[in-house]
This record gives sequence, structure tokens and C-alpha cells, in this order.
Amino acid sequence: MPISGFPELLPGQRFVELAVLDRLRRTFELHGFAPVETPAAESLDQLTRKGEIEKEVYVLRRLHADDSDAGGSLGLHFDLTVPFARYVLEHAGHLEFPFRRYQIQKVWRGERPQEGRFREFTQADIDVVARDVLPFHHDVEVARVMAEALASLEFLPPLRLQVNNRRLVEGFYRGIGAPDPAAVMRTIDRIDKVPADVIAKMLHEEAGLDDEQTAKCLALADIRSSDTSFVDRVWALGVAHELLDQGVAELEAVVRGCATITGVTVEADLRIARGLDYYTGTVFETRMAGYEALGSVCSGGRYDSLASDGKTTYPGVGISLGVTRLLVPLLQRGVLTASRSVPSAVLVALPDEESRESCDAIAYALRVRGIACEVAANPQKYGKQIRYAERRGIPFVWFPGEPHTVKDIRSGDQVEAQPSVWTPPVDDLHPSVVVPTKGTS
Amino acid sequence: MPISGFPELLPGQRFVELAVLDRLRRTFELHGFAPVETPAAESLDQLTRKGEIEKEVYVLRRLHADDSDAGGSLGLHFDLTVPFARYVLEHAGHLEFPFRRYQIQKVWRGERPQEGRFREFTQADIDVVARDVLPFHHDVEVARVMAEALASLEFLPPLRLQVNNRRLVEGFYRGIGAPDPAAVMRTIDRIDKVPADVIAKMLHEEAGLDDEQTAKCLALADIRSSDTSFVDRVWALGVAHELLDQGVAELEAVVRGCATITGVTVEADLRIARGLDYYTGTVFETRMAGYEALGSVCSGGRYDSLASDGKTTYPGVGISLGVTRLLVPLLQRGVLTASRSVPSAVLVALPDEESRESCDAIAYALRVRGIACEVAANPQKYGKQIRYAERRGIPFVWFPGEPHTVKDIRSGDQVEAQPSVWTPPVDDLHPSVVVPTKGTS
Repeated sequence: MPISGFPELLPGQRFVELAVLDRLRRTFELHGFAPVETPAAESLDQLTRKGEIEKEVYVLRRLHADDSDAGGSLGLHFDLTVPFARYVLEHAGHLEFPFRRYQIQKVWRGERPQEGRFREFTQADIDVVARDVLPFHHDVEVARVMAEALASLEFLPPLRLQVNNRRLVEGFYRGIGAPDPAAVMRTIDRIDKVPADVIAKMLHEEAGLDDEQTAKCLALADIRSSDTSFVDRVWALGVAHELLDQGVAELEAVVRGCATITGVTVEADLRIARGLDYYTGTVFETRMAGYEALGSVCSGGRYDSLASDGKTTYPGVGISLGVTRLLVPLLQRGVLTASRSVPSAVLVALPDEESRESCDAIAYALRVRGIACEVAANPQKYGKQIRYAERRGIPFVWFPGEPHTVKDIRSGDQVEAQPSVWTPPVDDLHPSVVVPTKGTS
Repeated sequence: MPISGFPELLPGQRFVELAVLDRLRRTFELHGFAPVETPAAESLDQLTRKGEIEKEVYVLRRLHADDSDAGGSLGLHFDLTVPFARYVLEHAGHLEFPFRRYQIQKVWRGERPQEGRFREFTQADIDVVARDVLPFHHDVEVARVMAEALASLEFLPPLRLQVNNRRLVEGFYRGIGAPDPAAVMRTIDRIDKVPADVIAKMLHEEAGLDDEQTAKCLALADIRSSDTSFVDRVWALGVAHELLDQGVAELEAVVRGCATITGVTVEADLRIARGLDYYTGTVFETRMAGYEALGSVCSGGRYDSLASDGKTTYPGVGISLGVTRLLVPLLQRGVLTASRSVPSAVLVALPDEESRESCDAIAYALRVRGIACEVAANPQKYGKQIRYAERRGIPFVWFPGEPHTVKDIRSGDQVEAQPSVWTPPVDDLHPSVVVPTKGTS
């Protein structure tokens, strides 16, 4: 029985996931991000330090626990940020700062499962962390790197990476004289979930704003642009504050830094707040067109203190892609699939059991040149062997003989070929990601 | 604090691990093995079905469990065979048989940690499973595929893949009239851990053998050959049994099938028994030279029933590589390391903060051609920037200018270069695995 909230893929679906993970890794490494992996388990002390999501943690217990387990409880990590902060402190003496790392791993949360929410899911995180001071240009860097990584997944529905800046909104709220800027931020954070009149009421009643202040806050939250035109619209609201200046300049730098990226929309969106998280400047969220109900599939921001050991503080900026959250709904609905369910590009047909050795030699000659293939399991009639290939999506069947021939079973084209020379078209070498309504990617 | 038994690697060490995992995956896919991943958790019923390793299972519990958890307990999988058997039954209708799969994942066991034994470790498994009948040639296939995969890890100490056959030994024991062949097998399985005279005594007392039978069993266990010469040595012992005939023929086929593989020794070793496991024919173990105390790092064999739903039986043959068990001791002792701790092949030096945009453009021109690089974080003196590259093992520093120059900081060679044209030597493109006493791989 499948366990609720623990998704399991068929081989073809797993090819799609691997294609995604490979492309992410490639982009991250091209930008100098080093691979880090941490254990699935952390001490419960580490995991519950922040407190707020305590109830979601899976605790580990040995089935027949004994005294040797007295040394403290373990739990499965629920994100990759808490383990990375611990990693930085623990290995600081062996790391060079600024330290760029990517981390692609499963995480676990004991939440009630629902679409887009899983109990086991894969995240792909990038962070840049420094000792004491982290220059702002790294905010631009992580935005660019993740935007490039997302753009490399051209088979996904359109993605919008939305950027905002906590200093900008806090400076604005202070500039209009809001008595409790944090309360305003918490309210604006709910703007996509709650009707506008309720938001206005909350801004009055809970955040203590008057009508003019409320109108300005709602006007700010309405600003969105994929170029730097948002800047003039902010200034047009006539609010001044030193923090606002800094925030606008930072957000402008991120949007300008991502201007040359194609394939993914990067935009300033002044309602993005990441309500509960400890971000201090830049914040990121990401929406996938047609899948808005999933919420943000890729989020992050700037922490002034990712980690601290009391003496040294490690500021960081990072962004986390919810690979499972984004991919599994697409796979389950058949929006994405793979061109075949096996890696083999070629099935070497087997005329009779005595020919197995010579067929293995043909397969060997193909493999040393990087062509994945398999030899038929049984010397059935060729028609049956061809159907075997068809069912798996293997595009080519090799017929041993004098001369050898190879047949593209999609087109029916059959040509003479030599095992040491013939190569399939490059698009057929590996399984590819297919968008049934759009064709092969 | 590191958690005992949960190894954690530094980025350079993780590069070595990724290199290993990439090569394994490549070999498996070249042979048509499809990727499967199963959840970390299985129902406790599944995990404890076989009973014997019950106490090693980590059970999951939500920190604040409530009634919604009543639906049955979950535990972390302790191998990849139990989950794969469940996967085959659950998805049989969507799979094509014979089904070749590889599965590279973490597994967890609550064992007492010691060198070579971890509580969290990565395994790389390959299996071929069929419905009802699985032809014997697949035994040869999995031996070959794993031997080729191991041979691709040429930076490892010498590996010996030892093959035996349960039918061979059982037929031999029956042929000499042993009253309890299973007891003989259990005793012979301990031959590397227990002194020879004790083994002889056990064969007498526990397995009920007389002196001549004992001598023959010990003579059989002494036979080892990396070619098919073991066959004559078996027949020279003058024992006859129908099962022995079949076992000898099968073992001969595996050894002959692997004869062309270089870089890894594949040998018949007639003392290998895999005592407690449910193998029925071919069995595999693997030793690493100089690390015999680790035990077998890669083991497996043929199951007549990998899975069964009562109506249909799924025979299988597979082999499981203990990636962590094999690699972590080598990494911890510095026997293996990476040529650098970051993916970057190039550090683009930053003359001043105003040049960041043009330096980013240089980096972009390198990346689109697949060259990993980073731009210096700060416009420090060039000497400092070069030392920054040195500490990370980045081989090249790019100096923007008219003309641009690029310096190999190992040799000191500096040449003029264009961002859209220059390419590092292919060996420097990615971090490579280094065996400090042997040089780069």
C-alpha cells in the first residue's frame, strides 16, 4: 500500500525527476556552488530550536530501544536550512567564506497530506553564507542562479520569481507612521488569501492604521513590475524613510541583475512578505502558472544571522526550490512524462540462445560509445521482440546478421549498421522529458 | 555535534562521493537498468516481515502524535530489497518484465556504530526481476554490470568480486552424504572468522560430519580461481550430485561471462555462502584489498522469490554495493580526496566594485560554454584574490583587462584569452578524484 504523503514514482516519472535534479545541479555548479549533504537526522534540540514547527517533526526511535539510546533524541530534518546552519558552525574551520553551497535532499514533515503537501519531499537549496559580513551583491547572485536554474527546466509551466525587500516595506510602513509595522506586514502577507475589504479592516483594527495609511499600504502592495519601473511607482506614493531608500535600491539591483534572464519571469512584487520567516532584506517567492493553489514553489531571502556561535555571526542569503511540490502534481496529471521507461536506446534482438555471446558483444560495442542498450531476454520471434521494445519506448531494435541492420521502430526505417560505428540521433541517446501537449523537450 | 553513526562529508569529500554515484549510475543505465526510488519509510509490517533484523529498525513517530496516526506505524527502510519487493508487487501492472532497476539511496539501521558500520548509509543496488521465470543468464548479467561499475571506480583499492553458488555447495554436501547440509553451510560461512581447527570441530559436532567428509568440505572451501580452473579442482574431489552439476555449470558461466572485465578481479570462491540470506543459486561478496576488516562491501545473489503475492512469484537476482561502507573509511583516512573543494574552474578577479557587471559578463561567457566559475566577492588586492583561489583549489584566475589574461596559479603560466573562446584543459573542467599517493584520476 502506498503510504499517504510519501510519493512514489514509476521509472519513467523518475527519469523526469532525475532530469530536473541534473539540470539544477549543473546550473548550481556552473556558478561555483559546492555540494553539501547532511544526515537525514539531527538532534531534536537542533530541530526544535526555533520552536514554531515542533509538531511536524518525525522523531526516531529504535524498535527495541535500550540504554545506549539515552544520549539524546533524533528527528528527521524538516528543511535544509536548520541542518546547514549547524553544518556551517560545526565545520567553519574547514570551510572558506563566502561559502556557496547547494543541497538537494529529502526532507520530512508530519503534516496532514493534501495536494502539493507531502510528508516526504525533495528540496533543492542554494545559499551563500559569510563570516560577519555578506555583501549585498550575493542577493542578486542567488536570485540569478535560481532563475537560471528554473529557466533550464523549460518543460515546466511558466514560472514567476517574485522578489520583494523587507527593508522597503518596513521603511514604507515607518514612513507613513504605522504604529506597528510588523502587524501591517503580517496582514499584507495574507492579501492573496483574504478578501480586500477584510484586509482593509484588519489594517485598521489590528495594525492601527487610518484610512489614508491603509490606502497607501494597499497601493504599495499592488505594485508589481518585471522591470525597474516599480521604483517610480513607489516614489509616487510620496513616502520617505531611510530604510525605504535602502530597500528600493536593493530590490532595484536584484531586478536589474536578473533582467537578461529569459524563460522565467523575475519581477518585483511588493506584496510578498514571507510572513513568519526571519528574513531581513530580500525575500523571494515563486508561482507556477495554472498551479497557483500550490502556493510558492521556490522561496527564500536574506538572513542577517543564518547561524551564530555567540562569538561569530554568519549572515546568509538563500532560496529553496520545492522539487516534489512542483513536480509531482505535474507527473500525476500526466502534464510531464518521459520518452521511455528504460534508459536503453537500443534493444539487441536475439535470434537464438546460442547467439547470446555475439549479441552481448554487439551491446558491448555500443555501450563503450555511451549508447545504453540491452539484449533481448529470450529468443522469441522478432515480432514479439519488437513489441517488447515498443512497450518500453526503446526507439531502436538491432538485428544481428551479415550485414547487421538497425530499425527505428517508430518510423519503420531500417538501415545497415556496424556496432562499432552506428550512433542514434543525439535526442534518442537518453530518455527525454515530454510535455504531451507540446512535444519533446 | 556530529551524531554517531551518521557520517557527514566536507564539500571536497562529497565531490568524491558524487563522482562515485555518477559513475555507478552511468554504468547501470548503459546496461538498461531503470532508476527507482522508494520512500524512506515503509509500514512496520513490511519491514518486520522477515523478522530477523527487527531490532535495527528506526520507527517514526510524530513529535505530537494524535489520532490521525492510528493508521499504522512507519519505520525507515534498512535495505533497498524489502522496499523493492513491495514496489514490484504494488506496481506490477505498470512494469515490463524482466524488469531491470537500479536504486541508489540512503538506508538506516539502529546498529551500534563502529568503523565500517553506520546508522545511515548509502547503498547502490541493481536487480533483475521477472514474473514466474527468470532465465539464468541474468545472473551473469548482474555480475558483469556490477563488476563493470566497480571497475569504473579506478581510484579505489583493488576489489575482488567473489562468486559462489548455493546449488554447488549444497549438491556437494549432499553428494558426500552430509546429514545436515544447512549446518555445514552455516559453519563454512564462518571460516574467515574462526580458526581452522575450530571449524573442523564444528563440522564434526554440529554438522555431524566424519573425518573424510570434513576434509572434503574444507578442501572445497579452499578452492578459488579467477578463471574456470576451479571446475577441475571440484571434480578432482570425486563427489557427484545432480545439484552439484548444475551449480558448477552456473558458476562457470558467471566466471566466464566476466572474463573480459579488467580493473576488478571476478573469481569463483567456494567458501562464500552468505549464511543468513535467502539465496538459492548464485551468491556474491566483495573484498577491498587492505580493508578486509570491513567485510563484504558488495553482496547479493539469486532469489527464487524476491516477491510473491500468493498468485504470482517474482524471482530475482541482484547485488548491493555499500557505497558509504566502502567510501567513508577511505575519505576519513585521506586515501581519496578531490582536486578542489568548489566546482569553479576559474575565479574571475575583481579589480574594483564598479567592474562587477563586466566581470559577471566574463563569467557568463564562460558558463554558457560549461565552464564553472565565480567572480571574486570583494575587490581586494590581486594577491589576496589569488590566495582565495588557492585555498579552494581553483586552478585558474581570470584578470579582466585589455587584453584579458588568465593565469594557471599552479604553474604560474599566464596567457591572453577571450571569454568567449578560452577553455581550460578538460581535466580541470570539473573537480577530479585524487589518490594522494597515486596522483589524479
